[in-house]
Amino acid sequence: MANTNYGSPKNKGGRAGERLPDQLREVRLTPDYTEWAEGSVLVEFGKTRVLCTASVDEKVPPFRAGKGLGWVTAEYGMLPRSTHTRSNREATAGKIGGRTHEIQRLIGRSLRGIMDFTRLGERQIIVDCDVIQADGGTRTASITGGYVALALACHKLQTKKLVLRSPLRAQVAAISIGLIGGQPLLDLDYSEDSRADVDFNVVGLDNKQLIEVQGTAEGAPFSREQMNQLLDLAETGLEELFRLQKAALASALGTGH
Amino acid sequence: MANTNYGSPKNKGGRAGERLPDQLREVRLTPDYTEWAEGSVLVEFGKTRVLCTASVDEKVPPFRAGKGLGWVTAEYGMLPRSTHTRSNREATAGKIGGRTHEIQRLIGRSLRGIMDFTRLGERQIIVDCDVIQADGGTRTASITGGYVALALACHKLQTKKLVLRSPLRAQVAAISIGLIGGQPLLDLDYSEDSRADVDFNVVGLDNKQLIEVQGTAEGAPFSREQMNQLLDLAETGLEELFRLQKAALASALGTGH
Amino acid sequence: MANTNYGSPKNKGGRAGERLPDQLREVRLTPDYTEWAEGSVLVEFGKTRVLCTASVDEKVPPFRAGKGLGWVTAEYGMLPRSTHTRSNREATAGKIGGRTHEIQRLIGRSLRGIMDFTRLGERQIIVDCDVIQADGGTRTASITGGYVALALACHKLQTKKLVLRSPLRAQVAAISIGLIGGQPLLDLDYSEDSRADVDFNVVGLDNKQLIEVQGTAEGAPFSREQMNQLLDLAETGLEELFRLQKAALASALGTGH
Amino acid sequence: MANTNYGSPKNKGGRAGERLPDQLREVRLTPDYTEWAEGSVLVEFGKTRVLCTASVDEKVPPFRAGKGLGWVTAEYGMLPRSTHTRSNREATAGKIGGRTHEIQRLIGRSLRGIMDFTRLGERQIIVDCDVIQADGGTRTASITGGYVALALACHKLQTKKLVLRSPLRAQVAAISIGLIGGQPLLDLDYSEDSRADVDFNVVGLDNKQLIEVQGTAEGAPFSREQMNQLLDLAETGLEELFRLQKAALASALGTGH
Amino acid sequence: MANTNYGSPKNKGGRAGERLPDQLREVRLTPDYTEWAEGSVLVEFGKTRVLCTASVDEKVPPFRAGKGLGWVTAEYGMLPRSTHTRSNREATAGKIGGRTHEIQRLIGRSLRGIMDFTRLGERQIIVDCDVIQADGGTRTASITGGYVALALACHKLQTKKLVLRSPLRAQVAAISIGLIGGQPLLDLDYSEDSRADVDFNVVGLDNKQLIEVQGTAEGAPFSREQMNQLLDLAETGLEELFRLQKAALASALGTGH
Amino acid sequence: MANTNYGSPKNKGGRAGERLPDQLREVRLTPDYTEWAEGSVLVEFGKTRVLCTASVDEKVPPFRAGKGLGWVTAEYGMLPRSTHTRSNREATAGKIGGRTHEIQRLIGRSLRGIMDFTRLGERQIIVDCDVIQADGGTRTASITGGYVALALACHKLQTKKLVLRSPLRAQVAAISIGLIGGQPLLDLDYSEDSRADVDFNVVGLDNKQLIEVQGTAEGAPFSREQMNQLLDLAETGLEELFRLQKAALASALGTGH
Repeated sequence: MANTNYGSPKNKGGRAGERLPDQLREVRLTPDYTEWAEGSVLVEFGKTRVLCTASVDEKVPPFRAGKGLGWVTAEYGMLPRSTHTRSNREATAGKIGGRTHEIQRLIGRSLRGIMDFTRLGERQIIVDCDVIQADGGTRTASITGGYVALALACHKLQTKKLVLRSPLRAQVAAISIGLIGGQPLLDLDYSEDSRADVDFNVVGLDNKQLIEVQGTAEGAPFSREQMNQLLDLAETGLEELFRLQKAALASALGTGH
Repeated sequence: MANTNYGSPKNKGGRAGERLPDQLREVRLTPDYTEWAEGSVLVEFGKTRVLCTASVDEKVPPFRAGKGLGWVTAEYGMLPRSTHTRSNREATAGKIGGRTHEIQRLIGRSLRGIMDFTRLGERQIIVDCDVIQADGGTRTASITGGYVALALACHKLQTKKLVLRSPLRAQVAAISIGLIGGQPLLDLDYSEDSRADVDFNVVGLDNKQLIEVQGTAEGAPFSREQMNQLLDLAETGLEELFRLQKAALASALGTGH
Repeated sequence: MANTNYGSPKNKGGRAGERLPDQLREVRLTPDYTEWAEGSVLVEFGKTRVLCTASVDEKVPPFRAGKGLGWVTAEYGMLPRSTHTRSNREATAGKIGGRTHEIQRLIGRSLRGIMDFTRLGERQIIVDCDVIQADGGTRTASITGGYVALALACHKLQTKKLVLRSPLRAQVAAISIGLIGGQPLLDLDYSEDSRADVDFNVVGLDNKQLIEVQGTAEGAPFSREQMNQLLDLAETGLEELFRLQKAALASALGTGH
Repeated sequence: MANTNYGSPKNKGGRAGERLPDQLREVRLTPDYTEWAEGSVLVEFGKTRVLCTASVDEKVPPFRAGKGLGWVTAEYGMLPRSTHTRSNREATAGKIGGRTHEIQRLIGRSLRGIMDFTRLGERQIIVDCDVIQADGGTRTASITGGYVALALACHKLQTKKLVLRSPLRAQVAAISIGLIGGQPLLDLDYSEDSRADVDFNVVGLDNKQLIEVQGTAEGAPFSREQMNQLLDLAETGLEELFRLQKAALASALGTGH
Repeated sequence: MANTNYGSPKNKGGRAGERLPDQLREVRLTPDYTEWAEGSVLVEFGKTRVLCTASVDEKVPPFRAGKGLGWVTAEYGMLPRSTHTRSNREATAGKIGGRTHEIQRLIGRSLRGIMDFTRLGERQIIVDCDVIQADGGTRTASITGGYVALALACHKLQTKKLVLRSPLRAQVAAISIGLIGGQPLLDLDYSEDSRADVDFNVVGLDNKQLIEVQGTAEGAPFSREQMNQLLDLAETGLEELFRLQKAALASALGTGH
Repeated sequence: MANTNYGSPKNKGGRAGERLPDQLREVRLTPDYTEWAEGSVLVEFGKTRVLCTASVDEKVPPFRAGKGLGWVTAEYGMLPRSTHTRSNREATAGKIGGRTHEIQRLIGRSLRGIMDFTRLGERQIIVDCDVIQADGGTRTASITGGYVALALACHKLQTKKLVLRSPLRAQVAAISIGLIGGQPLLDLDYSEDSRADVDFNVVGLDNKQLIEVQGTAEGAPFSREQMNQLLDLAETGLEELFRLQKAALASALGTGH
């Protein structure tokens, strides 16, 4: 897919760092960022930084017990000053807000979507996604990094012979796209996100299938045609993310892996 | 769009009440179901029954104050025995669950998407959607009925000369569609919803534009082609809902309206 | 008991709908109002509408376990716009208020007062009373309707042979009475309730015995004589309610029942 | 009223300390038990001990503001080991239980029932009733002692010339009575309370008027006749309590008061 | 240690009641202040009054189960009007504040520091410290009184042969000291505490060993030398407290004990 | 102070990384670790990593308003998998635990201890300390890093001319020391901390004055002599920390600063 479909020379200058409309921010995946977790990665999409850890718990939640099947769940949080102006801690407020609930449910569904729970066996993996610095796209970064943390934890379970065959059936990653002034843009940063008319988050697999599409008209409604343009753009971004995930896991687990 | 695209004779029997794949359940809108609210409607999609009320508050939330602009927000709840097995009250649990948060945020965004807040003026309309009986599709019924309650409240504001011109820029409705065994189905009931591979909720306007698309792979990932089939089906359902909304408002407000 | 004791012609006009001082509002009991619950009824006292459902749970609370005895408990809630001005949801507030606690404890005690828990066996019936529209007397409507929902659920347990003999030892109903300007009035609506000097709620059995009397001087203290006048009036109202409960159950369960 | 109406010689021995059926436990009121509060009293009914303090707050609650009228509210709590077996702290549980809510609402209504809020002026008095040791009758002891604390605080406001005439229109006290095996008993202790068939709490004024009657059938329903017997007995007890309140206030404020 | 080290004649007059710098307020320990608890004492340091009760629970917390070892924990609370101006109840606020947490953790650690948990056996003693009136030093009074309540409860366990040898390995008490204008003062009352530059709480054993030292510069930093002066002063106070604890226990348990 | 006082050759090998008894772990301070906060630093003590950010709020808390004085407060949190085994989020639990309260109160007091609030002016600085990875000493790392974040924020206020003279009166840092088997050790890591008999946290200023000393006997009581040995050791550690803080600030703000 050529850039020229999405970005004409004159509005190219509109993105920070001279980014093209169909260009991701610089994405970095730093595996084994912390030591105690079974899997951990620092994922960065430009200035957005999220620490993802995967913790193995040998118990499953009550609704899942006694079936021989595993479970994956996710939790999401933002450090109080990960945002431009400080937000109150949810622990202090005494409750988790609606946005947090919505995001952690999305991350959990996305990661469960690639799991073979029979292979995982009756144990739970909890993926924590904590935002160190937010500049747009924290939920898609969380899914993209969450996959890497999950894969590292699964690998550790295999190494310890607790799991025989990999419980991962596919790679999963996520990306945001949006419409600003009619222009489809890939991987919105915060300043773009806050003035987008339409905002989509797409969660896909490395076989081009999708597992979650969430599109919202923030400023103006959208047509089926615009939606299709945005989804085309998402595919481009996801492909690049799958490549980066593979590279990060290879570096962490050794070349032959 | 012909039914034959979606439902062959042999699987027609698979839906309760001999429903066709592209057929809505019986939808009923009973305006003015309660007396105190500025707008109220009982919306039924088959056995799913939701009471929607719109309450006008002459104050806006703090983040909105002093701008001369109005606001619309939504709250959603389920009566404890609206479900097949009784659920605990969120009031007793002391907190609102993630699903409730997600749904009430969706309803709120959908209804705000059609509002002209300058015309509404600095006041808030709170739309409460309370599920009396649940049989699948409560969030889409809430949006569809929420629009009617909101329109009745706006009409009352105009009647009282508090608002000069209607703050509604369009009609909004929502419908679910899903894939079961590869078959796209419109307006899933609970038993269908719980075995669907893919589940979409689509919020659209009466000009065919969309304002929210949420698709989730519950059991198996989906392709772009399948997604397009589902969205075609959604359009059919939405058209019928816009017609029913119009009829309900006409009956409540008088023919010439 | 003659009306003339309580209502002289000249103040008869003071009640909405030309109601006599010792006259109930129109009371309607609509059994099987919802489908999933083991017992359900919509109870209406004039504009007051409460949905009562009875849910059977095969477990009893911990303090009751292992004794072979059943339990009945009640929960009470108001929809946010059941009231003239919208109230905040208790789920959003994160806690149940004092008034709600007080009412649901009263309903629970009243319904337990007629139960033979040995016959019920070690299971719990939860009676949910949710106010759709409030116009005074929601707690007495809840008890009156709660009995019908409970009776329907007990009948279902007998039909399924889970319970051999009816666990109901009596009928129970409740009514409010009050003093306004020295005049005893039966079944206060909201506008009466808010200007009553004295407000009583009486819970009685169909054998004329009482199980709960709660009288409060809202505006002025009361004498023993006044209290006795009010209790006489309550008896009249309760008799009518027992008759209506019987009729509702007969219609739901068949004549010969 | 003669004892012989209520207690025959043979069951006299049934009460702790050879108490007669119409005899109060030893009641002690120790005014000024603590120093900081505007009014304070330790009230004891036998082993039941409640510390009541009245705190003057120069602000009224929001719903009362700007009307020139005062307010009285009450809070009630039990120390964790005031009971035979330790109860969890409500502060640790994070919420106030239903029983506590019910009791503190009753105390508040009872004390408000004697107030002239115009004379009090736009200020609030908060009466805290904290149970040091519980042996039945804590709510009636709280009302009886709460009156004394309230009267001391009102006296202090008059002494400081903040209030010109006493805002107290009457004395208020409360007592429990119950039926055990058909025998009416005055002022139940815990062991009596837990086996009573019927349990009444009566709040009365020193002019024989009543402001609150709450009667509950714990074990068996009751007739109008039994209820009247119990209320007769309550009158006896209340008279003694009014005498003791007067004596306590006289000792605290000086004879001529 | 001579008083002359700490209090010169000219500033002697600075303390309430002509107290010397190294002099405790009048300390009173009233054992068996309440009846239900296994151990109870009212501890008073001048106007500070704290009720300490020790409750034996035959279960230990989950983290301690199955090890044959006991546990001691403490809870702390203040009555709303124990303070000069009324504080809100933590139960009403729905959460325990930071100061309360800090204090109850300190009391618990201090009391656990003298326990032989093997001798206690797998049971828990909960020490509740509830402040009736606060005038500074409530946490040190709680520890000092908490020891007496704990010792009474342990004695009761021995009397009942549930415990064979005393689980107490030492006496524990606590005292505050502070620096005001360079002058070390023992046992600060509220007015002193609120203007102290440095505030220490010291928890010690009757063998002169320490188990907790907490020193905070409220107004000005302190030197090692000043800290040593304060700790010398604490030793004087602790010795007196150990003597008073012994006397209180002897009076409660009989001389020969 | 010579190492030989504290570490004999034979037990030197007991510390991870051949660390000497009076030797700090490798301490790293990375200023400007995040971009949005007015001050930020990543502080590492060996494997312990804490992100400290300082956020300027132009409002002070209500109790401080209208006095022309500033305020500093601190909040502390641990990421769920910062610990060896995953802990539940406090946001999910709905309340902040006692340990967190205790720590954030300590950090706040320590940082306030060096502030000139007149110079700061009526604004608040909130210092958030979030533990990325925990290996003992997180509270002392938080204070040490918190100072750097606070200094960076103060510098920014001076640069913007919002504050004229530095509101910092001294440098503040904190260190832990402990006794293991009679051996005093500086800067305990988690494995040392969990088997220490005595554990001290000392907060000091660069002029050798102290502002907080907290010592706890975890396993065995301690003598005044042992306490003095530990405080000597703390002084050594604090000096090194002051040097590192100076270097970090110099690198962030330019040499001449």
